[in-house]
Amino acid sequence: MNIGIVGLGLIGGSLGLDFRTLGHQVLGVSRKPQTCELALQRGAVDQASPDLALLSTAEIIFICTPLGAMQKTVQQLIPHLGTEAIVTDVGSVKASVADALHPLWPRFLGGHPMSGTEAAGIEAAQSQLFQGNAYVLTPMDETPIEIILIVETLVQSLGGTVYKCTPAEHDRAVAWISHLPAIASTTLIAACLTEPDADVLKLAQALASSGFRDTSRVGGGNPELTRMMAQYNRDALLQSLSAYRHTLDQLTQMIEQGDWDMLTAQCIQTQQVRPQFMLPP
Amino acid sequence: MNIGIVGLGLIGGSLGLDFRTLGHQVLGVSRKPQTCELALQRGAVDQASPDLALLSTAEIIFICTPLGAMQKTVQQLIPHLGTEAIVTDVGSVKASVADALHPLWPRFLGGHPMSGTEAAGIEAAQSQLFQGNAYVLTPMDETPIEIILIVETLVQSLGGTVYKCTPAEHDRAVAWISHLPAIASTTLIAACLTEPDADVLKLAQALASSGFRDTSRVGGGNPELTRMMAQYNRDALLQSLSAYRHTLDQLTQMIEQGDWDMLTAQCIQTQQVRPQFMLPP
Repeated sequence: MNIGIVGLGLIGGSLGLDFRTLGHQVLGVSRKPQTCELALQRGAVDQASPDLALLSTAEIIFICTPLGAMQKTVQQLIPHLGTEAIVTDVGSVKASVADALHPLWPRFLGGHPMSGTEAAGIEAAQSQLFQGNAYVLTPMDETPIEIILIVETLVQSLGGTVYKCTPAEHDRAVAWISHLPAIASTTLIAACLTEPDADVLKLAQALASSGFRDTSRVGGGNPELTRMMAQYNRDALLQSLSAYRHTLDQLTQMIEQGDWDMLTAQCIQTQQVRPQFMLPP
Repeated sequence: MNIGIVGLGLIGGSLGLDFRTLGHQVLGVSRKPQTCELALQRGAVDQASPDLALLSTAEIIFICTPLGAMQKTVQQLIPHLGTEAIVTDVGSVKASVADALHPLWPRFLGGHPMSGTEAAGIEAAQSQLFQGNAYVLTPMDETPIEIILIVETLVQSLGGTVYKCTPAEHDRAVAWISHLPAIASTTLIAACLTEPDADVLKLAQALASSGFRDTSRVGGGNPELTRMMAQYNRDALLQSLSAYRHTLDQLTQMIEQGDWDMLTAQCIQTQQVRPQFMLPP
């Protein structure tokens, strides 16, 4: 196929590397000429340009920009699109993206590759990034069936495991396992800083080991990503936060009241169910 | 020295291995004859017995039982102790242990080696477990200075980095970096289970990856350990939980009100301070 990619970062660049290996023609667009040059050098694209007109022959276009740039990107892309072109995206939230993009281009299907590293940019792009990982597609009632089939086949050719659900279901699921953990983890670090005794805080920092390291990792991550997921998945995140706060209050009450049997029962339950979140996709 | 160890699990056994390597005489006591036998086989002790009378010649005794058994253990130990014997412990909370043990034996000094693995028992004991890790000593005003020096010297010979503070300071520090993370992590898993739509929960479980794995790890840990730390460090933990809940409410409010600049500023702060919790001891 003739595949377009807008946004040549970690995801866009990695898609390009794999699609070229699979024999597709890959056309890449980045605002920055230097990124276009790097993408060509790395073999992530066959052609690259800052000009969206490059994509006039593309049969499917992957929008790989940050969430905040997607709507504007597709608006600017439309004049160049062939009538049969398919548009898909790789954003980490889906309902707000679908609300923004589907009215612009009905041949749109949202997607979310659950692949990533802490690194970013075309320099971090790697082949087989999607191999063995979940890749969610979020068709709507109006989505033409052949579009779903084409995107699904492409994703499977990358080695990704396809999950299909509505945009809203996706957003609730990732609120639980990605966005809520980010806020809970940020809260943990921020709460420690409220310790009024500087010596105790210093001691806490010195004594922190693997438990704190793991629990705080995503809270020490990219601030822009955390802001974006909160902004674009606000409703689902607030629902999860509300449940989290209620559960926190219940556990706190068990500790206040010294109800150790109940606390132990809760911990036994979480110990037992956690492996269900650890299965390979 | 002639060193006694009561409780031949991961910590007690590992202390024995290192102290014997350093040339000390190690006397070990475990309730279970089978554990005594294993400790002898593994070279963790020179002599072992279920009978505390074995420790009558010990110059220093490490109490390595679970927190809940320490008071009773020391009560039973006292008739066998030489008048100059030093008693120390390795419990993960210190104020409640000091309150229980110091009145029984004034030549007591609390300690907490910040070493551990997920494994437990004499089978998990290993040499150099304490090498490069923090080891907190919690002297009180009444603690004889020579006791502090002796224990400190022993800990340093294990390769541990000694931190000295009051029992209360220790308990507040570990509430922040160990006990609060355990409850926050337990809460995360438990909150996910409140999702009313079984399909969404199943999807969340399928999509969970490294962020959830790390944030939930200690919440999926040993229920008995979580209960014990909550029970024995209740006051400090409740203080940390209160601050955590307040901080959570602040972050939730930023998201509710769409105050993305404030949320970003908070995330930038946590990103910047987290490395201060990651320094080697």
